[in-house]
Amino acid sequence: MKTVFFPPGNEWEDLCRRPSMERTGLDLSVREIMEFVRSGKDLALMSLSEKFDGTRPGNISVTPEELKESDLLVPDSLKRSIGSAAENIRKFHAAQLSDDMPVDMGAGIRCWRKSVPIQKVGLYIPGGSAPLFSTVLMLGIPAKIAGCSEIVLCTPPGKNGKINPVILYTAKSIGINSIFKAGGAQAIAAMAFGTETVPKVFKIFGPGNQYVTKAKELGQAEGLAIDMPAGPSEVLVMADENADPSFIASDLLSQAEHGPDSQVMFLTVSRDLINRVKDEIGKQLDELPRRDIAAKALSNSMMIQLSSLDECVAFSNAYAPEHLIINTRDPHMQAAGIQNAGSVFLGPYSCESAGDYASGTNHTLPTNGYAMNYSGVSVDSFIKKITFQEISQDGLKTLGPVIEEMAGAEFLAAHKNAVSIRLKNIRND
Amino acid sequence: MKTVFFPPGNEWEDLCRRPSMERTGLDLSVREIMEFVRSGKDLALMSLSEKFDGTRPGNISVTPEELKESDLLVPDSLKRSIGSAAENIRKFHAAQLSDDMPVDMGAGIRCWRKSVPIQKVGLYIPGGSAPLFSTVLMLGIPAKIAGCSEIVLCTPPGKNGKINPVILYTAKSIGINSIFKAGGAQAIAAMAFGTETVPKVFKIFGPGNQYVTKAKELGQAEGLAIDMPAGPSEVLVMADENADPSFIASDLLSQAEHGPDSQVMFLTVSRDLINRVKDEIGKQLDELPRRDIAAKALSNSMMIQLSSLDECVAFSNAYAPEHLIINTRDPHMQAAGIQNAGSVFLGPYSCESAGDYASGTNHTLPTNGYAMNYSGVSVDSFIKKITFQEISQDGLKTLGPVIEEMAGAEFLAAHKNAVSIRLKNIRND
Repeated sequence: MKTVFFPPGNEWEDLCRRPSMERTGLDLSVREIMEFVRSGKDLALMSLSEKFDGTRPGNISVTPEELKESDLLVPDSLKRSIGSAAENIRKFHAAQLSDDMPVDMGAGIRCWRKSVPIQKVGLYIPGGSAPLFSTVLMLGIPAKIAGCSEIVLCTPPGKNGKINPVILYTAKSIGINSIFKAGGAQAIAAMAFGTETVPKVFKIFGPGNQYVTKAKELGQAEGLAIDMPAGPSEVLVMADENADPSFIASDLLSQAEHGPDSQVMFLTVSRDLINRVKDEIGKQLDELPRRDIAAKALSNSMMIQLSSLDECVAFSNAYAPEHLIINTRDPHMQAAGIQNAGSVFLGPYSCESAGDYASGTNHTLPTNGYAMNYSGVSVDSFIKKITFQEISQDGLKTLGPVIEEMAGAEFLAAHKNAVSIRLKNIRND
Repeated sequence: MKTVFFPPGNEWEDLCRRPSMERTGLDLSVREIMEFVRSGKDLALMSLSEKFDGTRPGNISVTPEELKESDLLVPDSLKRSIGSAAENIRKFHAAQLSDDMPVDMGAGIRCWRKSVPIQKVGLYIPGGSAPLFSTVLMLGIPAKIAGCSEIVLCTPPGKNGKINPVILYTAKSIGINSIFKAGGAQAIAAMAFGTETVPKVFKIFGPGNQYVTKAKELGQAEGLAIDMPAGPSEVLVMADENADPSFIASDLLSQAEHGPDSQVMFLTVSRDLINRVKDEIGKQLDELPRRDIAAKALSNSMMIQLSSLDECVAFSNAYAPEHLIINTRDPHMQAAGIQNAGSVFLGPYSCESAGDYASGTNHTLPTNGYAMNYSGVSVDSFIKKITFQEISQDGLKTLGPVIEEMAGAEFLAAHKNAVSIRLKNIRND
């Protein structure tokens, strides 16, 4: 990790810039895949699976037998853990449902919002080096709470033509049974356009590699909504001299092991702590099965000494981290100043992995600086709020002249006339 | 208007398709404008204003003198109407602020969400045939309620080098003073990248022509957030034989006068009503100053007779209108079935222009079928919800084993270790 001491303010922007991603040629190849799926549908999915997943699945749709089989393959203790995590996630997200109370706008004018689920949503769960069944919980539970009527899940099959049983079990355990063997850009295309087997959806959620990200971006131009723009995962840890360096090192490494393009940032007021965290990283890194990935990520990462915790907060707001751990004597003091972050973890025992799996908050969060202008996934992400209004004759008598005057000043005579014709009718009544 | 009687279900998708927009060559020319502004900044804005607005403004930033002058140019009665509308809009939107209550997740685990304003936002107000000061209220008031610390407004100057005084007055009346003379794709570029004068913002709101829309779309690829994808404005009116045909005609026309690419849809169970509405449109259209625009829009539009009001609701859900007027005997009955719409107007006296100007709801709404998967603008649009968590030693003792098991099953050893190292420390305490 690069170490920087007391960088002046005019260098912050550079320090906050994420490592750039190589994306040449991506646009064209993803467009090709998407068009291939749009026209070829299921057959295209099968041949792309053969090419990219090393298997031609006999069935794209997961069968009830495969779902049942998954039940036998997942150990009971893991099932219990998934159940506990699901319970917390359900509890935290259920509290996000809001009542749609009418707002009293004066006599004869009633306005309100109604929360209505997005009817068809698609969840993408990546395959690859880790079977991310936790993401099934993080996307599926809020979709269920929102009340989406059709929830479609796509995830690539392994070389044996099957989906990881823990992913299947987790989906089934929260009531998602519409599961398809499709990965990468082709899965996004299948859900965006629909195939004979995979239903077309209105919004797609979930992480993925650069192909998946690009496909979601291209789908947007065709009317699809997506959860949020994606980027490599990241954490910023802010600590003072009270913090245990082994905790900090473990948090930095738990982010670094995600992928070689992950970035971890450590801000502190204590030079001594920087040295001790470095030592701890050295020790812990050696023990990790994914040490090569983590080491690569650390090479994109930074430790920065700043002159005060206030300055750490200011730097963190400029960086806008996906995950922010505040490991200081009084973390609430710093938390009060946080403007830009995806999810914030307070105190020595709130490690990021708690939020990644089981405390109840969502782990689908804005990265790459998007915490400036996006929220993480919540029940809101699966809902539209439709406004309603009902105006009586009396209401229009009050409001009508205001509308007529404003419409007139915007030179929109027909807008004005829609009121005038009604007011005339009321007077003639 | 095309009239269709009892279309079978397999024709609905075609009937719901919006008229296609000609956008050839748009991508390249908008990219050029944006790059020109990114490198040339203020000077680029001035020369583009000369080219597109027919004026080279002496100052890009509106001066306090110009703001003061606008005060003298707006008649008092219009000021009072703007004030009444602002009051309603403020009341309806203030009710959207939510408390961020912690959710009790069990002993030692506290999770909550905190609403934090997006710090810097940009509002775009189009120039052109109508001075849309109402949009200043619809975007500016929720931005103020959300608490955005920097609110930037761009709108093109007229040929006299000045901004329409009603737009200036309205902005000033709600506390927006950071106003710039810039229109079109160049205004979006200025706010996306920043210039010497125009501040860079994190999210851009507001309607505009196809150049503005394209610029917002391209800005998204650079990290900008936008309110929602845009398209021509539209209304769907649903009515039974109780409805007054003159009201319906006035509603259809008030949408049709927006632009030649607007679409208006009329669904009913009564063939007699179709004929009477047609007659009324004929009469009212002749009186309109914007009759040529409205007539063009009507040529893209449809009247459809269906066999029941339930079928009207189903068709409306398939169409997903921006504005939906339900003018039936018991509009709440149909409203209960509405899944996809931007804003819904119930009963004979709730005309769309009420929501366009003054009842309190927002008029920035999803068009072009986006009501399937997007909400209109609200205070939420100006806010991020950051999740927080604080876990004590006791909390981690409960949660820790669950996290360890799940992280292990995802083969993420460092995630697991962040918990294990803390649990070990607690045991050694």
